[in-house]
Amino acid sequence: MIHDSQIEQWFREDLGHHDVTNEVPGETTGRLVAKEPGVVAGMAAAERVFDYVGVDVLETTEDGTRIESGDVVLRVSGPAKAVLRAERIAVNVVGHASGVASRTRKAVDAAREVDDEVRIAATRKTTPGLRGIEKRAVVAGGGDTHRLDLSHMVMVKDNHVAEMGLEGAIAHFRDRVSFATKIEVEVEEPEDAPTAAEAGADIVLLDNMRPETTTEAVDLLPGGVLAEASGGITLATVPDYATTGVDVISMGSLTHSAASLDYSFRTGE
Amino acid sequence: MIHDSQIEQWFREDLGHHDVTNEVPGETTGRLVAKEPGVVAGMAAAERVFDYVGVDVLETTEDGTRIESGDVVLRVSGPAKAVLRAERIAVNVVGHASGVASRTRKAVDAAREVDDEVRIAATRKTTPGLRGIEKRAVVAGGGDTHRLDLSHMVMVKDNHVAEMGLEGAIAHFRDRVSFATKIEVEVEEPEDAPTAAEAGADIVLLDNMRPETTTEAVDLLPGGVLAEASGGITLATVPDYATTGVDVISMGSLTHSAASLDYSFRTGE
Amino acid sequence: MIHDSQIEQWFREDLGHHDVTNEVPGETTGRLVAKEPGVVAGMAAAERVFDYVGVDVLETTEDGTRIESGDVVLRVSGPAKAVLRAERIAVNVVGHASGVASRTRKAVDAAREVDDEVRIAATRKTTPGLRGIEKRAVVAGGGDTHRLDLSHMVMVKDNHVAEMGLEGAIAHFRDRVSFATKIEVEVEEPEDAPTAAEAGADIVLLDNMRPETTTEAVDLLPGGVLAEASGGITLATVPDYATTGVDVISMGSLTHSAASLDYSFRTGE
Amino acid sequence: MIHDSQIEQWFREDLGHHDVTNEVPGETTGRLVAKEPGVVAGMAAAERVFDYVGVDVLETTEDGTRIESGDVVLRVSGPAKAVLRAERIAVNVVGHASGVASRTRKAVDAAREVDDEVRIAATRKTTPGLRGIEKRAVVAGGGDTHRLDLSHMVMVKDNHVAEMGLEGAIAHFRDRVSFATKIEVEVEEPEDAPTAAEAGADIVLLDNMRPETTTEAVDLLPGGVLAEASGGITLATVPDYATTGVDVISMGSLTHSAASLDYSFRTGE
Amino acid sequence: MIHDSQIEQWFREDLGHHDVTNEVPGETTGRLVAKEPGVVAGMAAAERVFDYVGVDVLETTEDGTRIESGDVVLRVSGPAKAVLRAERIAVNVVGHASGVASRTRKAVDAAREVDDEVRIAATRKTTPGLRGIEKRAVVAGGGDTHRLDLSHMVMVKDNHVAEMGLEGAIAHFRDRVSFATKIEVEVEEPEDAPTAAEAGADIVLLDNMRPETTTEAVDLLPGGVLAEASGGITLATVPDYATTGVDVISMGSLTHSAASLDYSFRTGE
Amino acid sequence: MIHDSQIEQWFREDLGHHDVTNEVPGETTGRLVAKEPGVVAGMAAAERVFDYVGVDVLETTEDGTRIESGDVVLRVSGPAKAVLRAERIAVNVVGHASGVASRTRKAVDAAREVDDEVRIAATRKTTPGLRGIEKRAVVAGGGDTHRLDLSHMVMVKDNHVAEMGLEGAIAHFRDRVSFATKIEVEVEEPEDAPTAAEAGADIVLLDNMRPETTTEAVDLLPGGVLAEASGGITLATVPDYATTGVDVISMGSLTHSAASLDYSFRTGE
Repeated sequence: MIHDSQIEQWFREDLGHHDVTNEVPGETTGRLVAKEPGVVAGMAAAERVFDYVGVDVLETTEDGTRIESGDVVLRVSGPAKAVLRAERIAVNVVGHASGVASRTRKAVDAAREVDDEVRIAATRKTTPGLRGIEKRAVVAGGGDTHRLDLSHMVMVKDNHVAEMGLEGAIAHFRDRVSFATKIEVEVEEPEDAPTAAEAGADIVLLDNMRPETTTEAVDLLPGGVLAEASGGITLATVPDYATTGVDVISMGSLTHSAASLDYSFRTGE
Repeated sequence: MIHDSQIEQWFREDLGHHDVTNEVPGETTGRLVAKEPGVVAGMAAAERVFDYVGVDVLETTEDGTRIESGDVVLRVSGPAKAVLRAERIAVNVVGHASGVASRTRKAVDAAREVDDEVRIAATRKTTPGLRGIEKRAVVAGGGDTHRLDLSHMVMVKDNHVAEMGLEGAIAHFRDRVSFATKIEVEVEEPEDAPTAAEAGADIVLLDNMRPETTTEAVDLLPGGVLAEASGGITLATVPDYATTGVDVISMGSLTHSAASLDYSFRTGE
Repeated sequence: MIHDSQIEQWFREDLGHHDVTNEVPGETTGRLVAKEPGVVAGMAAAERVFDYVGVDVLETTEDGTRIESGDVVLRVSGPAKAVLRAERIAVNVVGHASGVASRTRKAVDAAREVDDEVRIAATRKTTPGLRGIEKRAVVAGGGDTHRLDLSHMVMVKDNHVAEMGLEGAIAHFRDRVSFATKIEVEVEEPEDAPTAAEAGADIVLLDNMRPETTTEAVDLLPGGVLAEASGGITLATVPDYATTGVDVISMGSLTHSAASLDYSFRTGE
Repeated sequence: MIHDSQIEQWFREDLGHHDVTNEVPGETTGRLVAKEPGVVAGMAAAERVFDYVGVDVLETTEDGTRIESGDVVLRVSGPAKAVLRAERIAVNVVGHASGVASRTRKAVDAAREVDDEVRIAATRKTTPGLRGIEKRAVVAGGGDTHRLDLSHMVMVKDNHVAEMGLEGAIAHFRDRVSFATKIEVEVEEPEDAPTAAEAGADIVLLDNMRPETTTEAVDLLPGGVLAEASGGITLATVPDYATTGVDVISMGSLTHSAASLDYSFRTGE
Repeated sequence: MIHDSQIEQWFREDLGHHDVTNEVPGETTGRLVAKEPGVVAGMAAAERVFDYVGVDVLETTEDGTRIESGDVVLRVSGPAKAVLRAERIAVNVVGHASGVASRTRKAVDAAREVDDEVRIAATRKTTPGLRGIEKRAVVAGGGDTHRLDLSHMVMVKDNHVAEMGLEGAIAHFRDRVSFATKIEVEVEEPEDAPTAAEAGADIVLLDNMRPETTTEAVDLLPGGVLAEASGGITLATVPDYATTGVDVISMGSLTHSAASLDYSFRTGE
Repeated sequence: MIHDSQIEQWFREDLGHHDVTNEVPGETTGRLVAKEPGVVAGMAAAERVFDYVGVDVLETTEDGTRIESGDVVLRVSGPAKAVLRAERIAVNVVGHASGVASRTRKAVDAAREVDDEVRIAATRKTTPGLRGIEKRAVVAGGGDTHRLDLSHMVMVKDNHVAEMGLEGAIAHFRDRVSFATKIEVEVEEPEDAPTAAEAGADIVLLDNMRPETTTEAVDLLPGGVLAEASGGITLATVPDYATTGVDVISMGSLTHSAASLDYSFRTGE
């Protein structure tokens, strides 16, 4: 859910004190047009942007829709000055979110070539201030949000294990979080994977392992425990990991390095 | 200047309600380490992030510094739980800003090969919420912010010209903005460039012209009026535009499509 | 994590525009003293309250500590006017949170008489604006937060089942949430419990069942799936539910109907 | 007046980043139904909650209305996902406020048995963030808000008297506050009551006195000065204090220890 | 109490995105110097402004002090860029508040020539966003804040009287506000003054009456009820009203039309 | 653009917690009537104020319109309690802004008597929190905003020159700001004016010079560089400066010392 205080911040930074270039009388219509193929995302944010300045949104496209160059994804109508003031912000947020969705879609499609089930997940490596929008964009691209924030799931890291041991760390957190919270354990050696599983991990993160080692670790895991591969996985290496049998492949680049999808905004006829 | 309300938003989205994984006693140190070469930016934001949770920043690197893989760009010291809670946010913002700075640096360096003076400028195509941080990152990379917001400079666009004529539009805005504000006029044909200049434009934007056409337009301009090339210019085509004699080359991709620069954060010794 | 914007709101509502009664010169000390036995909570909030006005917190008590009447749980030192302005707010928040913790403790102790493992959990029936503080207070009292917000865990409700069927609803959500998110299913008949478990529920909520029916439902559940009892359970009936074999007993009254724990704040010697 | 920034905070804490359970298409209606008898309060807040997400409020009940189990106090209509997202927050705030109103009503009714005029007042012992809502709920229950914040009325306390003497303290504050502000003086001995009155107190607070002592103090007071009894007064002892002749009986428990009134929210027919 | 969210707003509006003129290295000192005689106010706001950017306030002057041209009212020390960024804001707020205080002082001094007791009060005609600061400035000038906001005191206006009658309106509000709240009644004819007093008004506002009529109304009032004169009273006519026997003279111009007091800020030695 | 967070602040400070005086049922109309001649400004803010509480604005007057006593500048219609709660805030903001516009108009008219072109500009000496509203009011009065904030234009001051020399300072900033940003240089001696111009200043500020000296400096300036006179210029001396040939005359008093324009708000017929 995108709140007005965030939309206000976006307008404040783009308009400044005294914008005269858009002091245009009358009403106009506008449409957001894709200039390259990809996957749409960020529509809810764009709606809030136009709504904030009293512009009606006549038509939108569902997040996750695959689009071609030339496709119109949003139509609006309202006071010309409001439409003109909102357009750049709308283009920026939809372009950014659609960039994330499109990159995710590519990774998912690459993985699907070799595995029907594996999930492609984002990480916490998101752009500050846009966590929610980027996570939804990942979903629009067919991906998995992974944990939304630190409170969503426990991630047992090497420093925890160093201090308390694998079983100790898992027990420590099991005792401190709700039954509603899953616990994932990061391991760096295949043989630690089954140990983590036996100690109660819901998910085992196979960190920075090559594909073959990943397969080895997956094979050691008992049923009912999920396996996630993570660390430097690229669009090129996604298929290699997809064949390892892991349930989840996570990639920070989905959110931190997605190029914006190109859109233009056109007013009037 | 980055304000606490923004830092608060970043922590809120990343921590959620009840983070237990970082409930670690004691003090620790931490350092932010580059994992690839590039240009540093976002240091002021990182300082505010650590300061917000009471962590001391012992050492930073000036924005704009070229770094190599392995370079430490920031050192902190403070309560372990505060350091751990801030690290991901700091990495995200510095990685994002440094990505923008590094991409800008590449464009500037490419232009410098053929011209010593031309400015490489960003646009208003920034990530919502991060206008200020991205504009400073562009400067860190050797670029020019271009207008910071709609109130900073008047951009006379085709719709204004369609309605009021070129001279009419310029006169209209000269009358409505401060003497402190420059007026830039967008033209699509080379022969409109000198007309705009004579009508009082401080800068003429040569929109979506090929390099040869751009040169033609520049040659028609009188002295004292700046020329800007804009529209689909890439790292590959920057040198072609740099030879045209324009004063400014602007590229939206500096901010909307820069991949994050890779950093890791390491705690303790 | 409690942010300054919330602390600011608390001061704004209690001070108003122009408080003269606390315009006292000089420095003072202060201590927060329990006036009845219970369990401490809300200490982090109290620290932020004093910190906001520049008062040093010299000593605090760990959330979850059992206290007796007369116990000092917090000591501060600072400008008299700041101490006086913060004291009422600190008493109110610590009193409220400790009330929640103390009520939770009673429920946990009652359950422990008959079962060593069962978790006593809160619900989403919290006081608006205090979700985080109340959930932490529940933990301080030995309880379980349950889901922190709607995004933390999926709760499949009767309306979902009515629309999509039990298996359909679970599959629907499994497909729409992260692997990091658990899915709990609400059932109203014991025989639906194993069906939900087989369809992939991580937890089955046995809604508004009497203890005997609850036992019946628990007995039908396969291993590895948690059972939660919920609906009108009171301090008096907690032991009856604790004997049913459920893993979790949730009670809205922990947060929505806990009387404040009585504290007074004393300044000077 | 309840502002959007507060409503935003309530939604943020209850929804989190990415709520999928309420992603339901279509429109629905909903009604808020009492599950036990009591007094309604918090309706203005509930209206703002639904309004914030674009749900129409069709019918509300006036704050202060006595209701029975089964009574519908609010009807709404709107997009199903918005109704579902707002319902828990609305129930929480109306339940909380109605709990305060109902408890106040009980105290007022108990006092009315023996005195037709005495006011039952709340204190500053309110739940942080809910001062305004709780004070209005006290009014809904037939009570008196007492001072709304520190700037509303001066309360001369024992520390002021210790430092400046009774007359000195009153004169000190008379000189520092507006003619629009009343001054109340806290006394602990009956004989100090007339002294305070003569020194210019508008109200004398008889602090922690037993009923008989309270009567004694009231008898010593000249006309035109109000008397307030305060300190540990419970629903059981209210009648005893109501017979003493005081004008006001204040009770912190009205706001800090009221159990929530039980409501449920039902959607569709 | 001035909160950080307000200070943040002031910096945001004055700095904008990317201030380079104050990017000065090193430390400096600064002092705020009066350029004309007057009364100091706004010091607390100035302290918060400097504190917000990490500048130490070494010395301040108490609000209400009479100053001469050349007097230093504030000394600070800190990072040069922080001092330079805060100086304009500090000058603006102290100049504004001191203007209000100085104008109030003039009105109070004029009244004191003819009456030792009469209070000079401000109104609700304050500059939006600066209610608290202006009310404190009025006090610094020797004036009375009058009601701080609509909730502080009831003002019974002609529309209330038209609808409910004088006694009816007073009874209506007495029933709806706390015993802690005074009730003032606006009358336009002298003979209504005693009627209002008998009906229970704490204060009678003699609205837009000439001095002689005001005296007439005051003479009709019983003891113990305050009289306020209001409506178009200027510095020139204050003495005429001061002789009428009213207790309070209120003037909107104290806050809405006070010229700023002239200060300059000087850095370094 | 005026945002809701600012409007919320205005309502919060004027209403307080529990306003009962405006708890009036039914609908009403209202109109804002000028009580003295002047120039209208602040209309956009007034519209937002009424809109915030759900009152329809039926008719407004364009900012900059010259009005006479008795002119209605705004008509509204809506719930009586909302109209009554908004009226004082609307009067305050429109009165303040119109005061600035009217004072500016006087200065502009005085200058126009002797020069058709000279611009009368405001400064950064604005009321904290109202920068945008006051700058727009200056425009409404026929004036020039001057720089909106520190990022809008570079002002090279004596401290910069002392440190880097005139040419050095200009070069320093030319290198650090965008081509979109003008650079103005403050000089104190006429002979420095042409030096600044040659070094690249876009505007030369002739600081605290008498009219004759100002003329002298203007005469030394080459074409294409603007001249601004500043420092202690009053309504009385504006014509003297208007004859000097400067392009801009700036006056802090336009914003920091404008008396409010008198309006009243009338409800019902």
